[in-house]
Parts: sequence; C-alpha cells; structure tokens
Amino acid sequence: MIVVMEKSATEDQIEHMVLRVEDLGLKAHVIRGAERTVIAAIGDKREHMKESLASGSGVSDVVPIMAPYKVASREVKPEPTQVQVGSLAVGGGAIGVIAGPCSVEDEEQIMSTARAVRAAGATALRGGAFKPRTSPYSFQGLKEEGLKLLAAAREETGLAVVTEVMSTEDVEMVSNYADVLQVGARNMQNYRLLEAVGKVPNAVLLKRGASATMDELLLAAEYILNEGNPNVMLCERGIRTFESHTRFTLPLATVPYLHNKTHLPVVIDPSHGTGHTSLVPDMTYAAIAAGADGLILEVHPDPEKAMSDGYQSLNFSQFERVMQRSKKLAVAMDRVIAQASEIAAG
Amino acid sequence: MIVVMEKSATEDQIEHMVLRVEDLGLKAHVIRGAERTVIAAIGDKREHMKESLASGSGVSDVVPIMAPYKVASREVKPEPTQVQVGSLAVGGGAIGVIAGPCSVEDEEQIMSTARAVRAAGATALRGGAFKPRTSPYSFQGLKEEGLKLLAAAREETGLAVVTEVMSTEDVEMVSNYADVLQVGARNMQNYRLLEAVGKVPNAVLLKRGASATMDELLLAAEYILNEGNPNVMLCERGIRTFESHTRFTLPLATVPYLHNKTHLPVVIDPSHGTGHTSLVPDMTYAAIAAGADGLILEVHPDPEKAMSDGYQSLNFSQFERVMQRSKKLAVAMDRVIAQASEIAAG
Amino acid sequence: MIVVMEKSATEDQIEHMVLRVEDLGLKAHVIRGAERTVIAAIGDKREHMKESLASGSGVSDVVPIMAPYKVASREVKPEPTQVQVGSLAVGGGAIGVIAGPCSVEDEEQIMSTARAVRAAGATALRGGAFKPRTSPYSFQGLKEEGLKLLAAAREETGLAVVTEVMSTEDVEMVSNYADVLQVGARNMQNYRLLEAVGKVPNAVLLKRGASATMDELLLAAEYILNEGNPNVMLCERGIRTFESHTRFTLPLATVPYLHNKTHLPVVIDPSHGTGHTSLVPDMTYAAIAAGADGLILEVHPDPEKAMSDGYQSLNFSQFERVMQRSKKLAVAMDRVIAQASEIAAG
Amino acid sequence: MIVVMEKSATEDQIEHMVLRVEDLGLKAHVIRGAERTVIAAIGDKREHMKESLASGSGVSDVVPIMAPYKVASREVKPEPTQVQVGSLAVGGGAIGVIAGPCSVEDEEQIMSTARAVRAAGATALRGGAFKPRTSPYSFQGLKEEGLKLLAAAREETGLAVVTEVMSTEDVEMVSNYADVLQVGARNMQNYRLLEAVGKVPNAVLLKRGASATMDELLLAAEYILNEGNPNVMLCERGIRTFESHTRFTLPLATVPYLHNKTHLPVVIDPSHGTGHTSLVPDMTYAAIAAGADGLILEVHPDPEKAMSDGYQSLNFSQFERVMQRSKKLAVAMDRVIAQASEIAAG
Repeated sequence: MIVVMEKSATEDQIEHMVLRVEDLGLKAHVIRGAERTVIAAIGDKREHMKESLASGSGVSDVVPIMAPYKVASREVKPEPTQVQVGSLAVGGGAIGVIAGPCSVEDEEQIMSTARAVRAAGATALRGGAFKPRTSPYSFQGLKEEGLKLLAAAREETGLAVVTEVMSTEDVEMVSNYADVLQVGARNMQNYRLLEAVGKVPNAVLLKRGASATMDELLLAAEYILNEGNPNVMLCERGIRTFESHTRFTLPLATVPYLHNKTHLPVVIDPSHGTGHTSLVPDMTYAAIAAGADGLILEVHPDPEKAMSDGYQSLNFSQFERVMQRSKKLAVAMDRVIAQASEIAAG
Repeated sequence: MIVVMEKSATEDQIEHMVLRVEDLGLKAHVIRGAERTVIAAIGDKREHMKESLASGSGVSDVVPIMAPYKVASREVKPEPTQVQVGSLAVGGGAIGVIAGPCSVEDEEQIMSTARAVRAAGATALRGGAFKPRTSPYSFQGLKEEGLKLLAAAREETGLAVVTEVMSTEDVEMVSNYADVLQVGARNMQNYRLLEAVGKVPNAVLLKRGASATMDELLLAAEYILNEGNPNVMLCERGIRTFESHTRFTLPLATVPYLHNKTHLPVVIDPSHGTGHTSLVPDMTYAAIAAGADGLILEVHPDPEKAMSDGYQSLNFSQFERVMQRSKKLAVAMDRVIAQASEIAAG
Repeated sequence: MIVVMEKSATEDQIEHMVLRVEDLGLKAHVIRGAERTVIAAIGDKREHMKESLASGSGVSDVVPIMAPYKVASREVKPEPTQVQVGSLAVGGGAIGVIAGPCSVEDEEQIMSTARAVRAAGATALRGGAFKPRTSPYSFQGLKEEGLKLLAAAREETGLAVVTEVMSTEDVEMVSNYADVLQVGARNMQNYRLLEAVGKVPNAVLLKRGASATMDELLLAAEYILNEGNPNVMLCERGIRTFESHTRFTLPLATVPYLHNKTHLPVVIDPSHGTGHTSLVPDMTYAAIAAGADGLILEVHPDPEKAMSDGYQSLNFSQFERVMQRSKKLAVAMDRVIAQASEIAAG
Repeated sequence: MIVVMEKSATEDQIEHMVLRVEDLGLKAHVIRGAERTVIAAIGDKREHMKESLASGSGVSDVVPIMAPYKVASREVKPEPTQVQVGSLAVGGGAIGVIAGPCSVEDEEQIMSTARAVRAAGATALRGGAFKPRTSPYSFQGLKEEGLKLLAAAREETGLAVVTEVMSTEDVEMVSNYADVLQVGARNMQNYRLLEAVGKVPNAVLLKRGASATMDELLLAAEYILNEGNPNVMLCERGIRTFESHTRFTLPLATVPYLHNKTHLPVVIDPSHGTGHTSLVPDMTYAAIAAGADGLILEVHPDPEKAMSDGYQSLNFSQFERVMQRSKKLAVAMDRVIAQASEIAAG
C-alpha cells in the first residue's frame, strides 16, 4: 500500500499516518520526494487497508500494491485448474462446449436440443429451470420440473447439465439434479449465494456481473474457493457500456488477462455477449482464437418461438456449422474441442 | 410495439410477421414506407413481446412503445406516494434524512451517532448489520447483534431504523428489528429477495444497481409492489462509468426523470455516489435542489477508524453543517427538511 | 512514480529498473516488501515517465504520484481564477449565466432571444455560427453571417458573445466577432485548435469531451494556458455512459472535484447534459447548489421549430422561471447570480 | 420515423403533430392503440427530423426507422469495398497488416522496423510524425522530418505508408508523403478534418472515437465519402468503459456488426485496444477469427525505450511469432494474410 500525502501535508499529518500504518500491523517507509511525501506500507495483509487509510487528514490517495484476492491468484497456484465434471472438461487444453436453450420449456424441446448439440460436438447441456427475469411478468422457468427434464436429457445423452441457481434456498435442490451450478451475472455479488455454492460438491460456473471489474470477479470466485469448492469456472458474458447496437459489449481481452492473473479456466458466452444471433458465430471463433477454455452457447430448435432469448439463439443447423468451423480453427491454434464421441452415454 | 422490417424483406416475411403479431394477441397494422415496411403491433400487453418478434426472418428491429412496468408507473397512479414509517417520512413535500454509519460496530458508536444525527435533524438511522463486502476477508458485520443495537438506538432516540437485508433467509429476522429494509445495489436484481421483501409489512429502500437502467430499476420495484408491498423508496447511489476520480458517477437527473415516470419517492445517496467525504456536502445540496425526496448519508464518530467506508463518511460536526445549510436551501426551494423535534422519542 | 515489480521479479530485473529510473533523471528508492518489491522514483518531472517504465521486464504496474498538469493546478495557483470579459464574469463568487439558441438562425431569432435572456438575467449570449453536426446532411450553421448577427445582438444588448470555433482556420475570424471562443466536446483533444485558441486574447470555454477523464480535461486546458491565455473556463456538459434515458449523464460531482484540483472556474451545461427540456430546470438548480461558477443554457423563441437541439431548449417563459428560482436559490447558498442591470448596454 | 404520443396526449396535440410531420414533407399515418397513439412519418428523408419532432407538446418519444447514413450503407452498395493502395490491400478477402512504431523517432528506428515488419509479412508501415498527445509536455512527433523518414522507408521496402494527420493545415503536406492518412480517435468528429481528407486522393484510415457509437462512426465516414473519397477504412481501436485493467475495451463484435451494415472494410488495432503488450497477440488472433479485413499493430525495435506507447508495442521477434500464428489461423478460416513477397519493392 502506498499512501500519497498532499503536497501541503504537514509533518504532523505525515507522522500521524505513519502511526496509523503501524497500528494496522504494517511497516511504514517514508519517502520524501521533490514535491510530496509518500509512505510505503509494507506487509502481507491485504484486508481492505485502503479504506482505513484513505480518510486520513492530509492524505491525497492510497494506492494498493497487491491484488486483493489470494486463492484464485496465479501467484499462489501457477498451474492452470482443469474443471472436469462428467462429460465436461474445461481448462487445461481441451475446449469444453456447453450448449442448449435459454429456458427449459418442455420435454420435446430439451430432448431434441440435447441430441442435436451432442451430435454437433457439445460436451454439456445448458438450460434454465429457474430464470432471473427483468420483469415479474415474464416467464420465470419450469423450476423443479425443468430440473427433472434436464436430468432426463443427461440420462439419455450423457451430457453434463449446467443450470442456474438463483437463491440459497434452491442450492440443495439444484445441486441434486445438475452437474454444474451457474451463478448468473446479476447474482455475482450475492455473497450468501456464493458461500452456499462453495459448500456443495458441484462445479460452479460464475458469470461476470455486467459492471464488475476483474478484481471483483476474482473476489467473488474467492468467496466460493474460500468455502472449499475448487471447481470454479469464470465466465465472461459481456459488460454494460454505452454501446447499444449489441446487448452487451463482449471484451475478449478478459481471456488473456485472466490467464495471466488466475489459474481458473475462462468460459465465453457469445450469446449474451452480443444479443444477436447474427453476431454469435464470429464471436465464437474470436473467443477460441483468444484462448477461451470453454464456450456457452444458446441453441434452440426454433428460436423464433423461444420463451426467452430467441433473438440470440442459434438453431440446430447454425450450431452445427459453428462447431465445424470451430474445430478447424482450434486445430490451427494447436488446441482441440473435446469430441462428443469421447463421452460415455448414460 | 413497432416491428421494423429490413429494406430487403420479402412479402412472405412481412406476412409471416403479421401472423406472428396476431398469434401474440395483438392487432397488426402494416405501414409501407418509401424505403421499408413497418408493422405496428397494437394492444395492451407488454410481456416481453419484443423477444418473440426480434428473431423473425427479415426483421431489422423491434421498438417497444409502452413502458414495461405498470404498478410503479405514474400513468397508473398520478399522485406521488409518501412512505411514512415511524419518524421517517419520504415523499410528498418533506425531505427525509437517513443518517448513520456504514457498519454498526459497537454500542457506543451506534448510540452516539444516533444522538448526533437526531440532534442535527435526521429522522432515521442507517447502519449495516449484514454487510455485503467485495472481499470475503473484509469485516462482514455484527449480524443479529448489530440489529439489536439498532433497535436499542431507536428505543432511545425515536429514530426509524434503516438496514440492509442480503438474503431471503434473513428477511424475517431483519424485519423484526428494522423499520425499513434496504435492498443493496448488488442485490437489485436478486429477484427472490425482492419477492421476499414484497411480503413483509416493512417499507423498502431499493438501491439502483451500479449498471441498472431506469426500466430495470422500476421493474425491480415492480417485483416488490407486485407482492403487495406499496412502501417502496427508490435510491440513486451512483452508476459505474469510466470515471475513476469518484467511486461511482452520481447522475442527479435520475430525480426529475423518475418524478416524471413513477409515483415512488426518490432518495439520493451522496456518500456512495461520490466515495469521497470532501464531495459529499456539495452533492447533498445538489440532490436537494434537484428535488430529491430523501437523503441517505454516512456519518461516523471517527471516520478514520471506521471498519468500512470511512473515506466517504462525515463526522458529527461536518454532518451538522451540512444539515444547517440543507435546511436553508430547502426553504429557498419551497420545501422543508423534516425536523427532529417532530419525532416522538421512544 | 511508483514502479511495482511482479512477485516473481528477479534481482536483475529490479536492478535494471533502478537504472532505467536513474536514466530518466529521477532518484530510485527501492522498498522490499513481504511479497514484492516496489521502486519509488523521486523527482519533479511528470512528462509521461509512466510510458517509459511500464514496459520494463518484470514490471507489474507503474503508479503515478503527481498530477500530470501543472499550470491549471490549484497547488500552483491556490486562489480561484475569475474570467471577466465584457458583461460576463465567471468564478470568484458571482454566477455567470450564458444563454441563447443552439444555432443562430436569423436576425429576428437571435435578437429576440438576446433581449429575452438579458431581461431574465443572463449576462452572455450563446449561439452557434459554426455547428459541429454528427451528420453531413444536417444544418451546418450560418458561419460568418451568424457571427455578424451575434455581434449585432451584442451591440444592442451589451451581452458578451460566446460561440464555438471548430477549426484552426476559423480562429482568427471568430475571435474578431466573439468575446468567448467555445471549444466543443468533440474537439477537446484537437490539440492544434487548443494551441490556436491559446494564442488569441479572447477567453475560452473548454467543454469536456464525452469520455474525457478529469486529467485529460485539465491537460487540454493546460495546452491553452501553456500558450499564454489564462482565461479558460472548464465546462461539464455530460459524459457518455450506458444510460439512455438522458442524452448524456451529467456528473455534478465534477464541480467540487475540480474546485479542489484547479483554480479555473467551472461552468455547467444542463441542456446538453440531459438532452430533455423537462429535466433542464432541476439540473440547473442542482448545478448552482453544487457550486457551479457559471451556467450555459439553450434558449429558443420556439424550440419546436429550432434548426437544432429544440428538444433540450427552454422557451422564453421557461427560462425566466428558471432564472427567478435560481436567483432565490443562489442567495440561500450565500452566492449571487450576476444581474442584467449591472451590464452597460452598448 | 415513429412519433409516440404520451398516453395523456389530446386530440389537438395529435393533430398538431400530424401537421408538423406533413410540414417536413413526410406522410403522416396515425395509429390508435389500446393505450396510446403513434404517428408513423413515412418518406425517404433522414436529415435529423427527430430533432424537429421530439420537442412537440404531448410527444413521448420519436423513434427513427432508417439508418442516418447513406453512402456508407450496405443497403446502397451491397458488395464490399476493397481499399488498395500501393502494397496494401484491405477488404475483399486478403487481410492487410499495417505495422510499425507509434512515433517515428529516427532513421535507424524506422528503417530497421520497416525491414523487420516487411520480412515478417506486413504490407504497410505505420509511424506517427504528428502525434496527438494528452499532455502538452509530451513528445509531439518529428513532424515533416518524420514524414521524410517514412517516405525513405517506403522507397527501400516498398511498404505503403500509413500516418496520422491532425489538422486541416497539414493535410496537403501529409498527403504528399503518405499513402494512407489516418484520422485518429480524438479527431473522429473533427468535421473540417474529415472534409479535408475527403478531398485528397489518398486512402483514409478512420479510427473510431473512444465513445463513438456505430452510427456516429459511419456518419463520420459519410463526411469523407460525401466529399468524393471512396477509399475509407474503418478502424476499431477500443472504447472507453469502466474497465481499467486494459487501456480501452476492445469490442470485436464491431467486425461482424459493421460487415452487416457497411461495405467499408474494418481494421482492428489490438495495440491501443488493450494497451498491454502481453494481451496483443491473443487479441490479434481473435480479430482475425472475428473476420477483420486488416490489422494495425505497434512494433518497435526496443519497446522499453520507445518515446511513446512502448507498453503496448511488440518487438521484432514477438511480431514475427504473431504473424506466423496469424497466417496459420487465417488459412483455417479460409482467408489469407497478404504476403510481403507479393510487394514490388521500390
């Protein structure tokens, strides 16, 4: 932590801040520059010291030096984490593809989609049973009925099931049916939910909040890791910016940035990240080229009739084309997309 | 809803969309322009039709005409809602001031603060017992012990208590101690929590998410109103933008905009909205001049030693000066800040 | 400048960076922490050292300590600058109000507006002769003919004239007619233009770019000051964010923030800052309460027929009401709006 | 244009708006819905009608139907434009790579870079002679001396020269030395400059402003096209968002979006788009996979000693590796990177 004093700071104010730094269990190192004095606070604590120091009299700024997260950090665990659950492997070379509808709507819809995405090369099935909807008047999901349909689809196709959990109360139920619990972007800082999914054996797909910084995302992961669950996948699904021609702005630099900072695998969601079917294929290829460890894509038998998010879903033949081209691309990048044939069907 | 067809749309595509509009129970009105055709979809439904139509073949864009919220709308209830709970009145003329520390830390801290803010003119006490913290390693609040201290402070000072609830599991406990349940910015789209606070008799202070649009804020309020709880206050606490010299960007145009669109009262939080004690007074005055119905301010006996948010807290004498100036300003704007003397102490 | 080394940085890398710092004419001060080493680079240079150091091998981050601007800084000149030009005074107590149409359209329009805004209390007339328009097909302004009409309006009413200059080629012509040269938001980083307006005797109203940081705004001012022109007013006119219910997001915390950092006066533009006539009055009051030194407002005899920006213009009676209320408000804040009666008409 | 009336709009207000629409030379089509009335304004004009209608009494909103740009539109010219100038071809299949230092510093630097990037496969040389710098105290470029060095490098290597022009006054001089005139992000809405580069025979690389929308970018291109210069390349170089771990946020969805809307080729700048050398390679691959028609990359013999932007520059061997991998990737995507061997050296 570097405490930058104001140019006009008095000796008393500087001395006071030195004592404050020492009170916090850190060593204070005073550096007197040509224009102003800075105090380096040395030690290995990172618990929001910044807050304690920034309000000191005569203080101009407090600059943290260390990342606020620990367990998620690559400095702590240099080798990449591979999340492996059932048919799905994400991280450590192979690219895992998760595909399926936004919402589970009925048996025919989820079964036909599971078969189609498996045939095209997906290794996990997504589908929402509990749906977070902006409006209370929108379709809210089939709930447990939806979970049962997902489990039946796994039974037949062998695909691991990824589905969202919205509330601590539902964690147990969802964890009984699903392989991977998704924490949605709107719940990225729902800390009780993060703690709850940190206590179950399932893997977790943690989506970045629409205005979350990288530090906030990694600290949210830290809440889960801190409870003992090491199987966390980070998911970039787009951020909110001034751009309105896409639903969100999808910043793919997230992929190499996170690969530098954390050992956790990074999944990209081109469907939410663009919000337009026509943009999904090219952003899928871009995600692979950027080094993504996994992809999550919305696929629906008839997007025009989807109960949610049809405008960003691929139909079966679109998904198949995207997968074919993605496989070729992965090879050119010395990587590989995990094949459906490798899955032991149930 | 206006369905804008692409310039190149065929007659078949136009006809198909007319049928889709009629399937949704709306009346289709085709308008053929010089360059392209648009289809007006007429009716009183607003349940996410947009999603159903936007993925149609040949469709360029779908433009909603009606606001997606109903019960919160000024068109439905033109007269402003006044939320009145214990000593606190917000909306309908008088400006309600909620003040207190970020976190409840101990009895001495909360009691002295309650007395000081009451003396200076606040009509409600804020204080966090359950704290949503970015890092799992930060102080997480005193929990029920904190709620008891808040209730004791109300007992002595007569001030209504405003405190955050972070999880559906805690709603019952918090509602037993507090007058107003605060839903924090990070939980604005935690829909299960919104439903839960919609079912208790307490008033709700709903904070705008850091990247929430006005429609999303009003739809979040609609989740609460829809469960039967009419006592909702909307709170602007700043949005996340590229600006980094303030913690968040505080857009005060929210006040007149919401006054045009909704009957619900609007509270401003200059503490979180700026993140710097030195900016809080001027933004408090600006909020009043913009027409805010209430204010929520962080006040701490010794901000430098606060366990959270000290850098944006006022001390007692700073708060007193802000209140004096605010009262004068309110009078000039033909408004009034509710006086502490009007509160019946417990 | 603080050079933060990576945790894994070697002694060689640290030594190399020490030499680099010394090469730049700064003194290097190495601090070895529990987890990583930082190098404090001490000296009074601020010319983009950051760039030179950030690419060093083993460097994690470079944190500047000093503000990059000098002449604009309050540390260099603590007393506030008052810009005084003809009838207009901005800064140093009195609030200067600049009002008029977006574009000068014809004699009747500009004359009637000049009379109306003078009668209501404005002390300067705004009006665009050279108009920066997003589309090449939009009305581009009357050019020199517009400047002549503005000068004629000054002749009759005594109001100082504020008008935009868009290109270095026009600086001489515009400076012959106008009192204050406005540099628009889109040209805030048009450095050749900044240098050119730094060389004329006129005052300059420098508008913040829609995505400019405070440092960038102050460095743009520095370009002008550096050429010898001390009469610079900074203008906040709103930033581009994800908000779409207003044309821009108007962050009034800019006012107290800039008052802390610079001696230059701060003008607020509630017309562009909101983009909706209905929001302009409340944001004008908020700007005054926040401590603005000046206001710039769009006023048009018949906004519905304006050739540009009618949707954010006040008509004469709306402007009169805003001024009356503003005067009352200013008094309550121990300030004053300069009166039209104090102007010596030409 | 769709004029949406308020729910409470009177018949008089509706009738008034019908007349206003007809005054503008459009046909008005009134549609009375269950809740409110909308007026469709039919015709082929797109000159900022919105402004004229939005301020009407009783009007809730005005929704444009047509894109505001014409000549740049894919609806007007469906086949993609290929910009071909000297050794550089961008658009229409082959991917053109422009590489070189941020600033031209001296003969040795620019010559060695030109040779190195040519050898690795670039087909054009970039290098700034006129540098737009945030601070007036930063290195401002070698000006005409820099242009001469660029021309000498072209003489030897055959590489087309791409360099920035900052001011109308310099357009003639720069156009004499350079093949492609770059309009920088800060000047994207410097309309006099756009008009000036629209009048010279050189091709233009138009960079997106850091907070420009797609419509604004295309209208800026329209200013150039409208003057008769058809050789315009659009360049995405990142936008300003709340993200601070990258210099800008690089939204690659710009590529497929623009390919849908315009026939102009799209170039990506991963150097400015990320601001960190370590992120440049992966974002280069992602840009190619997203379908970019060209790339512009900062390359410097010794980035640590660069006079500007060293922290985002590749050195020669890094650039060579990026090019090798890019070529392989392009092939997998059924595209090709134009080869240096195809250039006729001067």
